[in-house]
Amino acid sequence: MTAVTVVGTGAIGGAVATALRAGDVPGCTLAVALNSSAPREQVVAAVTAADVVVEATTTAVAGDLIRTAVSAGTDIVVCSCGVLADRSPAELCAGPGRILLPSGAIGGLDVLAAAARAGRIGATVTHTTVKCPSALGLPELIGAQVEVFRGSAREAARRYPRTSNASIALAFATVGLDRLEVVVVADPAATSTTHRVRWVSSVGDYQFDFRNAVDETSGGRTSLITAWSVLEMLAGLHRGFGPGVLVESGAA
Amino acid sequence: MTAVTVVGTGAIGGAVATALRAGDVPGCTLAVALNSSAPREQVVAAVTAADVVVEATTTAVAGDLIRTAVSAGTDIVVCSCGVLADRSPAELCAGPGRILLPSGAIGGLDVLAAAARAGRIGATVTHTTVKCPSALGLPELIGAQVEVFRGSAREAARRYPRTSNASIALAFATVGLDRLEVVVVADPAATSTTHRVRWVSSVGDYQFDFRNAVDETSGGRTSLITAWSVLEMLAGLHRGFGPGVLVESGAA
Repeated sequence: MTAVTVVGTGAIGGAVATALRAGDVPGCTLAVALNSSAPREQVVAAVTAADVVVEATTTAVAGDLIRTAVSAGTDIVVCSCGVLADRSPAELCAGPGRILLPSGAIGGLDVLAAAARAGRIGATVTHTTVKCPSALGLPELIGAQVEVFRGSAREAARRYPRTSNASIALAFATVGLDRLEVVVVADPAATSTTHRVRWVSSVGDYQFDFRNAVDETSGGRTSLITAWSVLEMLAGLHRGFGPGVLVESGAA
Repeated sequence: MTAVTVVGTGAIGGAVATALRAGDVPGCTLAVALNSSAPREQVVAAVTAADVVVEATTTAVAGDLIRTAVSAGTDIVVCSCGVLADRSPAELCAGPGRILLPSGAIGGLDVLAAAARAGRIGATVTHTTVKCPSALGLPELIGAQVEVFRGSAREAARRYPRTSNASIALAFATVGLDRLEVVVVADPAATSTTHRVRWVSSVGDYQFDFRNAVDETSGGRTSLITAWSVLEMLAGLHRGFGPGVLVESGAA
């Protein structure tokens, strides 16, 4: 059995811990579920006791947790991917544990990683997210759909850390944080979160559209599919293959 | 290092063997590359010598190769997925080796496997493929785009074994061979192969469009991305996670 420690008790952490406790993921069992404000010695003990840690906290505390897991040799599935925009992978990856990212609110990282392996030169990738203004921390005063950001995945993560997790995973799977173009659109009429991923290179032209049901407890910020992407990843880690993106120390 | 034996020297097998020989896949090395008509004792020796076998032959010979690998305890990546439409997984999976399917000409099996884990009840999945008539074994006489097939993935694999590999992988990743709806369209104007995958369930509504460049040596049948999906899968098997679909003995 793969013993999993979950840190964070919000929408994603709560759903992951509940599914593990119920035995919904073959081969995986819940070791410990902790609040993100748990005392450091408790976190260290829980990380050491686990085969895999799921980080479902915030970018503010994720960095410390990643370093604790990586140096203890425990793999960590990072949901607050924004933390990777401001720290070098080489700094965070300094240890035997691995940093793994779920596909989160999007998908298709399987074929896009293959397309990137076929050739990154000349490839273009764009990730467009449409959310209601409140989910982006914006006032509801906006009357119509408006593009509030266009730039690199790294800059998107700095400006919208809570909404850029899927962009970061997509970037690490393909062309890196500085080459992935991210567009963020605020739409007052949005009742669900939508994502569009577009890839163009010599092997193919791909467009993926995602309309996700949102977790009502998250203020419209978190898609229900995100917790399931973590669970699917945990099942894969147990069987030796499955979805997910590896953050390598040499990555940009 | 993960030693890989490749059986089949067509468009996919040739490209996979070439990339492995060139050292393009970290952690993986080419053990043996064989023609699909190689003598049985040679095949058995090559399968036994490998950690993973890549089957890139035809549905006519894939069944024997799968049984040889599975009973020898060697994992096998199956490209001629159509063979799974007429044999029960329980029969083919009778051994310690595992049967693994690449996403092939499509992708998004990461998020769709997660969505299926969230709930298959009420979920609908459709895979539409548009190819030129010759790639479907049809005369070029067709004047306009025409739907030549609509039915289950199992039936599609029986009717169009060479063009249904991605449907089979998608089915095993999600709702099974009898519930995945497949549509095949012949289009005399098609210069590339296109696929559309549509998923609707309570967690999300997803539409993925793929326009693939084709391998000119394959008569328009094989997308270039397919060999890369196999290579990405081999890299993943080496590191302990990566794309791919497991065929389980209890699957339908």
